[in-house]
Amino acid sequence: MVSPPPVEALVFDVFGTCVDWRGSIIREAGEWSSTHGRPIDGVGLADAWRAMYQPALEQVRSGSRPFASLDALHRESLDSLAKRFGLDGLEEAALQHINTVWHRLDPWPDTIPGLLRLRSGYLIAPLSNGNVRLLARMAKRAGIPWDLVLSGELVQGYKPEPKVYLGAARLLGLPPERVMMVAAHNSDLAAAQALGLRTAFVPRPSEHGPGQKTDLAASAAWDVVSSSFEALADAMNCQ
Amino acid sequence: MVSPPPVEALVFDVFGTCVDWRGSIIREAGEWSSTHGRPIDGVGLADAWRAMYQPALEQVRSGSRPFASLDALHRESLDSLAKRFGLDGLEEAALQHINTVWHRLDPWPDTIPGLLRLRSGYLIAPLSNGNVRLLARMAKRAGIPWDLVLSGELVQGYKPEPKVYLGAARLLGLPPERVMMVAAHNSDLAAAQALGLRTAFVPRPSEHGPGQKTDLAASAAWDVVSSSFEALADAMNCQ
Repeated sequence: MVSPPPVEALVFDVFGTCVDWRGSIIREAGEWSSTHGRPIDGVGLADAWRAMYQPALEQVRSGSRPFASLDALHRESLDSLAKRFGLDGLEEAALQHINTVWHRLDPWPDTIPGLLRLRSGYLIAPLSNGNVRLLARMAKRAGIPWDLVLSGELVQGYKPEPKVYLGAARLLGLPPERVMMVAAHNSDLAAAQALGLRTAFVPRPSEHGPGQKTDLAASAAWDVVSSSFEALADAMNCQ
Repeated sequence: MVSPPPVEALVFDVFGTCVDWRGSIIREAGEWSSTHGRPIDGVGLADAWRAMYQPALEQVRSGSRPFASLDALHRESLDSLAKRFGLDGLEEAALQHINTVWHRLDPWPDTIPGLLRLRSGYLIAPLSNGNVRLLARMAKRAGIPWDLVLSGELVQGYKPEPKVYLGAARLLGLPPERVMMVAAHNSDLAAAQALGLRTAFVPRPSEHGPGQKTDLAASAAWDVVSSSFEALADAMNCQ
């Protein structure tokens, strides 16, 4: 039996896997309520905004519209939700600030401690549908210690399109089997595995809040299943 | 008089500006001499290898060959120099190790202290003709604290092609005038300035060793001229 070639790089899904988008938006919506003197339903906004995410990406993936950055897609969704969530009539600068809440998401508590350990043994990078600016600003604010930033934007595509995973491996200068995709979403790992990448599942059972029913457990035989980024660091032999 | 919009990101030339390629290759060639039991002329190899750099890039820029990564171009140059520098007959793994000396270049003494300060106020990234893998591995080894890695490879081009500078601004989500190019080479700054980027010149008078005659002083009215990255941090108001 021949050992598989060693993994050299770990690439990470970001929204849900590294950062708590829902909790972060809910927290920040409290500030917006104070700033703008009107109650803003953070829970409702977070869930409604995110519900528009896959349909927006699908327009690009299907070819029914040209590539647009996630910042742009988020803004279109926000504009369509503004009236329902009491954000209509805000100044452009305020809407821009709200839209870039996606640059200000907070990591899960184990994310940075785990990444600091994993970084000692591997190249680490996001591989996200977030655009490069979003990912770089998020990392800078939160102290996420990426070695480099990879994004679907670099190939003008969105996961699970194959070109996103294969483009990342190409930029890393590695064959797919030397790259491991880390995600809290089974579908992301299935797409990566089908292309030859290694896979690690780290469930985030509260990504969608209490009562989450999806992605609570591994749906296939991923190479690694870990309960946190620190447990992943253990599994990958990083002290 | 209207103030220019504030700079949000600084992008850096790497070879010569951030790292001492010539001194690093000379130092490492001493190790290769010991390892392989034959004298290797590090000074001659460094200068001859680098002399093949612009002609190799020009083949891509001119369209006479498709894009190839700098790792690939460096390897072609190395292969053509191998016999002259006593590297013929080495095993493939040894040649690969020598070729990736470009991933193991050491920063100038002021590079990291200056970048750590600049990072507190700006997004910082390389904008180099080095490929993404090369730049990421170099930064990881040397502790260069980039927020993200930008490279001509991301647009399949080489500076001073306009698409490299404009592609970087696009990925940063900024108009060119909010991006500052930092380089030890006047020609790099001239290309950036012509496209609307801001410019900072940091001369590196020993990049090419003693007797260097080029790029000793600013050749045009760059926005900032600083003698080191720490002086640049002063000029950019970063403590």
